[in-house]
Amino acid sequence: MKIGLIGLGKMGQNLGRNLLDHNYNVVAFDVNQAAVEELKAYGAEGAASLKQLVEQLEPPRVYWLMVPHAVVDFILTDLKPFLSKGDIVIEAGNSHYKESIRRYEELQGLDVHFMDVGTSGGMEGARNGACYMIGGDRKAWSVVEPIFRDTAVSNGYLYAGKAGSGHYLKMVHNGIEYGMMAAIGEGFEVLEKSEFDFDFSQVARVWSHGSVIRSWLMELTQRAFSKDAKLKGIQGVMHSSGEGRWTVEEALELQAATPVIAMSLLMRYRSMEHDTFTGKVVAALRNEFGGHAVEKAHE
Amino acid sequence: MKIGLIGLGKMGQNLGRNLLDHNYNVVAFDVNQAAVEELKAYGAEGAASLKQLVEQLEPPRVYWLMVPHAVVDFILTDLKPFLSKGDIVIEAGNSHYKESIRRYEELQGLDVHFMDVGTSGGMEGARNGACYMIGGDRKAWSVVEPIFRDTAVSNGYLYAGKAGSGHYLKMVHNGIEYGMMAAIGEGFEVLEKSEFDFDFSQVARVWSHGSVIRSWLMELTQRAFSKDAKLKGIQGVMHSSGEGRWTVEEALELQAATPVIAMSLLMRYRSMEHDTFTGKVVAALRNEFGGHAVEKAHE
Repeated sequence: MKIGLIGLGKMGQNLGRNLLDHNYNVVAFDVNQAAVEELKAYGAEGAASLKQLVEQLEPPRVYWLMVPHAVVDFILTDLKPFLSKGDIVIEAGNSHYKESIRRYEELQGLDVHFMDVGTSGGMEGARNGACYMIGGDRKAWSVVEPIFRDTAVSNGYLYAGKAGSGHYLKMVHNGIEYGMMAAIGEGFEVLEKSEFDFDFSQVARVWSHGSVIRSWLMELTQRAFSKDAKLKGIQGVMHSSGEGRWTVEEALELQAATPVIAMSLLMRYRSMEHDTFTGKVVAALRNEFGGHAVEKAHE
Repeated sequence: MKIGLIGLGKMGQNLGRNLLDHNYNVVAFDVNQAAVEELKAYGAEGAASLKQLVEQLEPPRVYWLMVPHAVVDFILTDLKPFLSKGDIVIEAGNSHYKESIRRYEELQGLDVHFMDVGTSGGMEGARNGACYMIGGDRKAWSVVEPIFRDTAVSNGYLYAGKAGSGHYLKMVHNGIEYGMMAAIGEGFEVLEKSEFDFDFSQVARVWSHGSVIRSWLMELTQRAFSKDAKLKGIQGVMHSSGEGRWTVEEALELQAATPVIAMSLLMRYRSMEHDTFTGKVVAALRNEFGGHAVEKAHE
């Protein structure tokens, strides 16, 4: 099978090699031609434009988009003139599920199948065996299932049902991830402030072997501490890229009580600021009613 | 090596078999003689009293206590008259680390070594390979290390340092566990209320293979859903047995910001009540200032 791979960043580059390892023919396109050359060197065919990419595929064509969610619509707009009945567009980035449902419906008007795919496992997963959550038509699914079976880790893919269900699962997966990561972080926060002199890399190592909290995240915790015993080189600023927030927004819409995931999201926002306005207000109020000292702001 | 095993409940019974499998001689005691007979049938020597247990061991004696933390002091009080210089008492239950430091100091006065051991991995771990976090004297550690090496899962034990450090790590481990479990629970809460019809067992299955949140807890989630697809037979009441609360109390003492773990603990308490007084007060206030309807209590 021949696949048109669009987007050759960290994830796309690794997925491309994974596909090639499994004897798929890959036609690769990225606005960054250096990335195209890189995957060509590994055995892909390269394309200098979307038009060229389309011409190198045979209908019904299978496209795999592995791009940041902000550019999916731009690519689909550019791709639309070339799409024909029966084509399958796999969108394996981190889009919001409602966008995926909209895109599914738009392409349905062209008799093109749209599949929303949540991909987990990071770069290592994309390279050696990913975890996929897939939504879309069952008919299209039967065509593309082998691609997922071949490039996933064993037992690591699920056809979840109708359009949107794949990205929905990925969204909630990431919400859970936020909570788990916060719990791990807070646990080490306590250890770090404690009276004991723990070797955090060793703690994460023993917790990765046989404990109830053993997990890939704990293994990554060990890896991080083994590089930098107290993480002295890293600021505690926790960026985020959307899915945690979407999980909380979805929970609000459903009136589902998810305070732990919500708190882990809010603490990420807190970590983005050196000082908070909340803190200024509370300090000012303590001063107003009780004469408690405030800490003067630095000019 | 001969070990006096005190406490033959779910954990002790499994640990006893694990020890016997690794060619340790086990002298077993429990107030429940049926439990003693059970382990005798597997190859242990049995004791009808602590005195008998002591007499079947050679000094320096090694005792392994596997009992609920509430009875540790009772057992130590009964055992004290029999303890002699150089004996080693391993306490592998879920005691508070401050109690362990106190017990360590009390036994130090008798020249007896006390080791506090956090044990993780549940019954399956105790049976086939546990995860141990161990605190106490390094000198005693060198004597008993083989026992832990043999009964732990590979790489699954850590000598963490001075007295209390083993139970401290277990306490924080459980705090992390509370947060992780809450995050998983809340994720499925969202899925359950969503517009999609997910097969939760399949979702937990795919999340256990290659995803970022793969973990033993997710595997147990799959196991639970595979027995009862929507957990219809289980109430959402979350009991707890202390360590999560201790983690939060310790965090408060250290002024360590751990809102996610704290929230997961508070939500366990919330789950223990059908209705809350908080709710009554808030509903009453909405009624007072805005005339909003309240839901009448059932008599």
